[in-house]
Formats: sequence, C-alpha cells, structure tokens
Amino acid sequence: MKKVYILLADGFECVEALSPIDVMHRAGVELKRVAVGRNLDVTSSHGLMTLRCDMLLGDSLLEDGDALILPGGNPGYINLRNSEAVCRVVRHYWGSGRLVAAICGAPTVLAAAGVAHGHRVTCHTSVINDMGDYLYEGGRVVEQDNLITAAGAGISIDFALAIAARLVGAETLSRVRQGMEV
Amino acid sequence: MKKVYILLADGFECVEALSPIDVMHRAGVELKRVAVGRNLDVTSSHGLMTLRCDMLLGDSLLEDGDALILPGGNPGYINLRNSEAVCRVVRHYWGSGRLVAAICGAPTVLAAAGVAHGHRVTCHTSVINDMGDYLYEGGRVVEQDNLITAAGAGISIDFALAIAARLVGAETLSRVRQGMEV
Repeated sequence: MKKVYILLADGFECVEALSPIDVMHRAGVELKRVAVGRNLDVTSSHGLMTLRCDMLLGDSLLEDGDALILPGGNPGYINLRNSEAVCRVVRHYWGSGRLVAAICGAPTVLAAAGVAHGHRVTCHTSVINDMGDYLYEGGRVVEQDNLITAAGAGISIDFALAIAARLVGAETLSRVRQGMEV
Repeated sequence: MKKVYILLADGFECVEALSPIDVMHRAGVELKRVAVGRNLDVTSSHGLMTLRCDMLLGDSLLEDGDALILPGGNPGYINLRNSEAVCRVVRHYWGSGRLVAAICGAPTVLAAAGVAHGHRVTCHTSVINDMGDYLYEGGRVVEQDNLITAAGAGISIDFALAIAARLVGAETLSRVRQGMEV
C-alpha cells in the first residue's frame, strides 16, 4: 500500500486539504496528517474547521512516504514555507525522487525549499511573482517529473486525482472517479 | 446578508459539506451548521473528520434561512432522510418557495419529504432508482425552479457555486470564482 503525508499548518484551505484526504481514502492509499507546529489540532483558513492530525512533524523526514502533499490557504502556505522543518522534508522528498504535490499558494514552498527550479508550474494568481525561478504555465494542474502543482481551491479534486493517478492503477482510479461522479 | 443552513448528519461526505461552507464564507453569505442528532460534533463518512456545528436541529424549522443545503455521503444521506425533523424542514423550505440544494445521495431526501415531484434532477448513480418520481436528467448540476441537485463529491465546488449564484450578485460570484481559480 502506498503511503502519503499531507502537511497541515494553521490557515490551511479546507477543501484543498480534505479533497486529497478524501480521494486517498477512496483510492486505498494510506494518508497521514502531519501538523506543522506544536498542536495536533490544526485550524483552517478563516477558522472554518479544525482537523485532528495523526502526528507532529517535529524534525521527522517522513522517511517512509511515497508522496508529500502541500495544501494552500492563507496563511497556511506562508506558515509552511516559513518552517525550516517543512523545507527540509520537501528537499528530502524531491532529492530522493519522490512525488511532491502543491496547490494554490503552496508552490511557493518549493521556492522556499529551493527545489525544482526551472520546472513548469501553476499556482494561485496572487503568488505568481514568488515563482520567478519556475516556468509559470498557468492552468488548472501542471505536472512535470515528480512535481504536481495546481491553481487553487476550485481545482482541489483535479489535484487530488492527479496525485492518486501516480499512486494507484487505472482501474482503482476509475472506480474512485465513478464514486465521486467525475 | 443572506443566510443558509446546512444539515449535517453522521456520515456526511466531507468535501460535499466543506465546499459550500467554504464558498458561502467567501461569498459573504451567513451559513449555520445544523447537527441532525443529539451532538454538535458530527463525524463524516469513513470517520475522516469531525465538524463542530453551530446548533442542533431539534424541532426547528430554521425559519430565517434563505436556503437549505443537504450534503450526501453514506450513511449521511440515509440519516438525513430517516429524520422526520429533516423532512419537515425540507417541506417547509420547498413549500415557502425557498432554495433547496441537495447533492449525491441527498436528492433522495426530497423523495422522503415528498417535495418537488416531477422536477428535473441529478443525483449519485447509486440512488437513481430511489428517484422514480422525478425526471432524472443526469449530469453534474441540474437546476429547476428553487431546486438545485448535483451528482457527487467531485462536483462539490460546482454545486456550491450554483447555490452562491442564487444568493449573491454577479460581481461577488466572479470574485469568489477568481479566488478559487475556477
């Protein structure tokens, strides 16, 4: 069974986080929620919800994961990119050829971590100027090598399905899509 | 300011609930979360998350609302349609010409409440047989009169935006869409 980690900091965008959590569950991919900070309970952007995480990030490199998911949301993505522990995990995943997936403002975490420069990306319109070292392509979802980026909250299901497509077979993916009517 | 209620029973689909919660917040529509049952904390399908509600439904008709939102999820939609209090509110909203919006398995709550018979609808493929008194049209989102139905979790953002389009002006809706990159 594949295993993925989603990094959650206060101010995460709820739909951007819940969509991959939901899709991974449907796809039979083990997903662990990792709180960036000192509390297992992390509160989403605008205080819309609080999500209980499975573990604290601490200094872990999340060594046994196949993919790392970075949701956006303001100030969630800023809290992610300001965390040296997060940047270290992103470098570790990218450097070891594992999948890194970022949506909305979270592609700027790649820049903060100093990985994947020159790669084609999309991101939220408001942070394009932070992505100067990348080839901003725009659009809903952009994939190059082991990098998946997506534009924003409205694209969350496409983002989650793109991640799932790297981790499970076509038959499973088709079953997930049918179950979600998409 | 417009006001909407979302009815949440244990087993709700998390993305189907969070998408309208998120979109209404972005659109400046007041949204109240109403727990169907005895606890303010309601747990989503497959136990993926627990959401704190604002109030219990009890015997309230949610008299001051402009719209009623019914998320799906299994067994969430079954818990909704098995609740006489829910069916009473649905009849009250429909009978007073207010917007009723249901996604996934939740269009079957309309049938249980006995409203909108003969209307064009869509719903999750798995519950089509429960919608015999309606004109099953299929597709992502179907609107007729004050009824909005949507097919499933992957359509949640479209569903939420269709609700918002009934409650706010074009300029606000455009701003919400831009913010979500959709």
